[in-house]
Amino acid sequence: MLNTINSPADLRQLPRTQLKPLADELRAFILDSVSKTGGHLSSNLGTVELTIALHYVFNTPEDRIVWDVGHQTYPHKILTGRRDQMSTLRQLDGISGFPRRVESEHDTFGTAHSSTSISAALGMALAAKTKGEDRHAIAVIGDGAMTAGMAFEAMNNAGICEDVNLLVILNDNDMSISPPVGALNRYLARLMSGQFYAKAKNVGKSMLPGPVLELAKRFEEHAKGMIVPATMFEEFGFNYIGPIDGHDLDSLIPTLQNLKNLKGPQFLHVVTKKGQGYKLAEADPVLYHGPGKFNPAEGIKPAAASKQTYTQVFGEWLCDMAAQDKTLVGITPAMREGSGMVRFEQKFPDRYYDVGIAEQHAVTFAAGMACEGLKPVVAIYSTFMQRAYDQLIHDVALQNLDVTFALDRAGLVGADGATHAGNYDLAFLRCIPNMVVMAASDENECRRMLTTAFEYKGPASVRYPRGSGSGVAVEKTLTAIPLGKGEVRREGKGIAILAFGTMVAPALAAGDKLNATVANMRFIKPLDVELVKQLAAGHDALVTVEEGCIMGGAGAAVAEALAEAGIVKPILHLGLPDRFIDHGDAAQLLAKCGLDSDGIAASIVQRFGKDQPRLVVNNG
Amino acid sequence: MLNTINSPADLRQLPRTQLKPLADELRAFILDSVSKTGGHLSSNLGTVELTIALHYVFNTPEDRIVWDVGHQTYPHKILTGRRDQMSTLRQLDGISGFPRRVESEHDTFGTAHSSTSISAALGMALAAKTKGEDRHAIAVIGDGAMTAGMAFEAMNNAGICEDVNLLVILNDNDMSISPPVGALNRYLARLMSGQFYAKAKNVGKSMLPGPVLELAKRFEEHAKGMIVPATMFEEFGFNYIGPIDGHDLDSLIPTLQNLKNLKGPQFLHVVTKKGQGYKLAEADPVLYHGPGKFNPAEGIKPAAASKQTYTQVFGEWLCDMAAQDKTLVGITPAMREGSGMVRFEQKFPDRYYDVGIAEQHAVTFAAGMACEGLKPVVAIYSTFMQRAYDQLIHDVALQNLDVTFALDRAGLVGADGATHAGNYDLAFLRCIPNMVVMAASDENECRRMLTTAFEYKGPASVRYPRGSGSGVAVEKTLTAIPLGKGEVRREGKGIAILAFGTMVAPALAAGDKLNATVANMRFIKPLDVELVKQLAAGHDALVTVEEGCIMGGAGAAVAEALAEAGIVKPILHLGLPDRFIDHGDAAQLLAKCGLDSDGIAASIVQRFGKDQPRLVVNNG
Repeated sequence: MLNTINSPADLRQLPRTQLKPLADELRAFILDSVSKTGGHLSSNLGTVELTIALHYVFNTPEDRIVWDVGHQTYPHKILTGRRDQMSTLRQLDGISGFPRRVESEHDTFGTAHSSTSISAALGMALAAKTKGEDRHAIAVIGDGAMTAGMAFEAMNNAGICEDVNLLVILNDNDMSISPPVGALNRYLARLMSGQFYAKAKNVGKSMLPGPVLELAKRFEEHAKGMIVPATMFEEFGFNYIGPIDGHDLDSLIPTLQNLKNLKGPQFLHVVTKKGQGYKLAEADPVLYHGPGKFNPAEGIKPAAASKQTYTQVFGEWLCDMAAQDKTLVGITPAMREGSGMVRFEQKFPDRYYDVGIAEQHAVTFAAGMACEGLKPVVAIYSTFMQRAYDQLIHDVALQNLDVTFALDRAGLVGADGATHAGNYDLAFLRCIPNMVVMAASDENECRRMLTTAFEYKGPASVRYPRGSGSGVAVEKTLTAIPLGKGEVRREGKGIAILAFGTMVAPALAAGDKLNATVANMRFIKPLDVELVKQLAAGHDALVTVEEGCIMGGAGAAVAEALAEAGIVKPILHLGLPDRFIDHGDAAQLLAKCGLDSDGIAASIVQRFGKDQPRLVVNNG
Repeated sequence: MLNTINSPADLRQLPRTQLKPLADELRAFILDSVSKTGGHLSSNLGTVELTIALHYVFNTPEDRIVWDVGHQTYPHKILTGRRDQMSTLRQLDGISGFPRRVESEHDTFGTAHSSTSISAALGMALAAKTKGEDRHAIAVIGDGAMTAGMAFEAMNNAGICEDVNLLVILNDNDMSISPPVGALNRYLARLMSGQFYAKAKNVGKSMLPGPVLELAKRFEEHAKGMIVPATMFEEFGFNYIGPIDGHDLDSLIPTLQNLKNLKGPQFLHVVTKKGQGYKLAEADPVLYHGPGKFNPAEGIKPAAASKQTYTQVFGEWLCDMAAQDKTLVGITPAMREGSGMVRFEQKFPDRYYDVGIAEQHAVTFAAGMACEGLKPVVAIYSTFMQRAYDQLIHDVALQNLDVTFALDRAGLVGADGATHAGNYDLAFLRCIPNMVVMAASDENECRRMLTTAFEYKGPASVRYPRGSGSGVAVEKTLTAIPLGKGEVRREGKGIAILAFGTMVAPALAAGDKLNATVANMRFIKPLDVELVKQLAAGHDALVTVEEGCIMGGAGAAVAEALAEAGIVKPILHLGLPDRFIDHGDAAQLLAKCGLDSDGIAASIVQRFGKDQPRLVVNNG
């Protein structure tokens, strides 16, 4: 039957009775598909019925669905004409693992970072009102995403828009995974505890004796919910319905049909189970959150020991440093697994802080701790550092507080694509006074840089890439490197390549091809100006290479240093181009950007000529 | 009596009966002091009693008070040893208008941007717990600041910290000023409506008849607040007390004394009146929010018509463009007055959106509207753009959505100091793909650039400074300038000065002194590369000048363009140094940074020599 559904219009032709079998087919298709391509699994198995119900009840794409985070949109993609493209998921030139406006008219808003959906959907709903268009805007948001301040800001704004066609669907599925990390999760758990709440709501009024009923009436205007407790969402001005079973189409469809006819901000609380329908994923939704390829009949097998990832290097460093220094505290905005902090939490539970999806709070919370003499380490992906930029400037750097930032997933990230790429951190961090900014060239240097950042009495960051490095041995000691000092890794002639972080290895290979000097610069800030001067003095031209945007990045820092020193020297900047780079294999993408050793060598030859670099320079 | 108080310890020696007279003296002192220096008035008159009560009850500075936003800390400064320095307020080398850690041990956390206090105080409270220190951490936050998501993130985190010594004081004073802009304000207004709530709370239990009481007991564990409504703050895990009168020391002091003895997160709701005790400010707290010097007996007099500010230029452009284009919508994160949108709101109430202090939401909300074909203009200070950086990258630029950003207060801002300076926008904006980044050199160009940004089909920003420009005539038409085109403003020899935005005027004056060519570059992105090449070809050296950080800024963009074109040419970057710059007169500060015409000329002469620029260049 799934083969006959090429658009939601097809779906809406089906009789209600066919939807349950369709859900079963869809779930089987997803399991089969993801097991072949890798991708997100648990969350997509959890949204099968909700997706069917939404497209069945609402007139999509005229009605707008905004999927928060968006990694749960495989059922949506399959039902909106991309069934056959699922085999290309997250691959170069294939479809994205997230909704993208350029991919389908059904992807009304590109998501990936958390908690943007209510803001976007409210904007759409108010735009429809302004334009006199009668359409619904629907935000589907998870309970985790709901803890981010941005979602609250949007709720605060939406709650006063009384005649707006906005439906917020809270897809509540966290209960079974982690202990709740915040007050909101605890509150939702209370709402969900059995059918109690719904019953109480009905029982309440019928059981009220005379005098209390009168009292209730008197206060009703000012105190809606005096007798029957109003939920927090009702206090915010939403009409709250729920919780209902998000896998029961017989609940979902009539409820959505009712909600469709109500004006004003609506809030539907739906309870789903991550991994629903696939026993292995239900039992361990975290393991099946984003698996690689696997055999669905057997489940995920423990992988053969492979090279250590940078994330693991960080996790081990964190435990080792915590053992040595009792003032270390570790902070994560809801990325315990992703940031490699599982062991740290086990060993040092009192010094582990998961603050929820709340990057802004995480950074200022760290600042408060640093004021009292603790030494916080904030583990945060490069791309999520963007969410706490002001807190970094205004709360940490301006007060020169001693906070270490471990920036995982810097540079291109592969299958997750443009939304998750950490391409801008060098540019947006190095302009901040008081910051120390480092980029690790291998696993052992990553460990040393983390120690360096931790020992530095001020804000310092270390960036490292997703995945593993070359597999160099990582020492057990906690050794810092000298602040602001790079190192020459290869002596050559004519050309000096100044490489940053992950680009040191391909730069060395390019250096071999061209007999160029290669330096591992290590520090973007403070830049090793003496080394820059020395390399300028001893070479005909300089080449900078970084896995980050050229604009304002590490190469620009070198150019600024030359200008400041009054040195005039041919310079070539290599790095990521000024465009967003789609998903695909990271190594492939880097090669396409000319950032493998062949590309680097070719760019140098193209600019400066072959063999003995002849400096063909346009002197203005 | 105020003269005898040089620290909170002195204050704590006073008998309770003396506190009221002290409050009167303190209020008079503030009025006198601010009328002589200018500064914030209404908010400080509103916190006199609260400040006295806090320092009287708590053992400051051992107990930590974090003042959100911090512009209400004049009473705090006066009581903590800075009475005599109030005459230097917000002036060069004087005390700051905000709390600063370097200024006093009583300023436990530097604030200025809104909504950071709960995060910082929670960090301090948990640090105390970790270190085994018995101290309180107190966040004092206004109802406006409470609407920012960051405050919610902190509440969400704090609510589960059951044994933490944290007190959040909500200083609720918004009722009298503006209509509530969000659901939270409306909720607070309900809580405050008369003494109703406190009475209901007492009445509730005593009036309950048997069966209901039983029902209540049964549900109590799961549904605290089933009969007596729990406040939202209690749902978050806080113990809620209030609302109480924040000008009544006989309420404040016993309440704080009680709270001091309670463990776990406490929430005190205090109601104050902005401008309290000064009739003119009570009547018009907005006018008296941040006045210049005035005679307290007479009040603020209407200022003689002075030069138009850039803010006014924006406000008029917004109205004119809105009249021409019905798809324009104006969005402000709670800065209607500051951003010059009062008249726009009056003329186009249906297209005006004040989303509260919620920069993240503001930007993604704009993105949602742009998806539907509206053309949002987001008016935001440069420094507050930092708070929506990820939303700009991930929601607007990545999807190449048509949103215009009007960046007021770019560059140095004078009396507000480092926290409010807009020094980093050129660096952090130009690294983002798809962005157009402009800097206005005068009022008329500002208007043209706004039109240019609005007509451009993608994300575009225009930066302009605080205050007024040279007073050039502003045309009535809505004319764009060609995208990515600068202009030569002065033809000279030897040196070409490439000036951006506010630096065009002093660069022209410096050009006159040195007979240098001067270009108004207009666009930081897309940079006018043809003009750069042409200037490089026709001159011995290039000088870039910008009112922004040198690191990664507009000058770096010029250097990158030269490198990309293979042009080798001496270049000098002038701009703001790599440090945070304190408060003071903006013109004075710019001169100290060498960014007046004398400074620019001197820097050029120092680098390149006098008269005929001899190019003394170190060639590596």
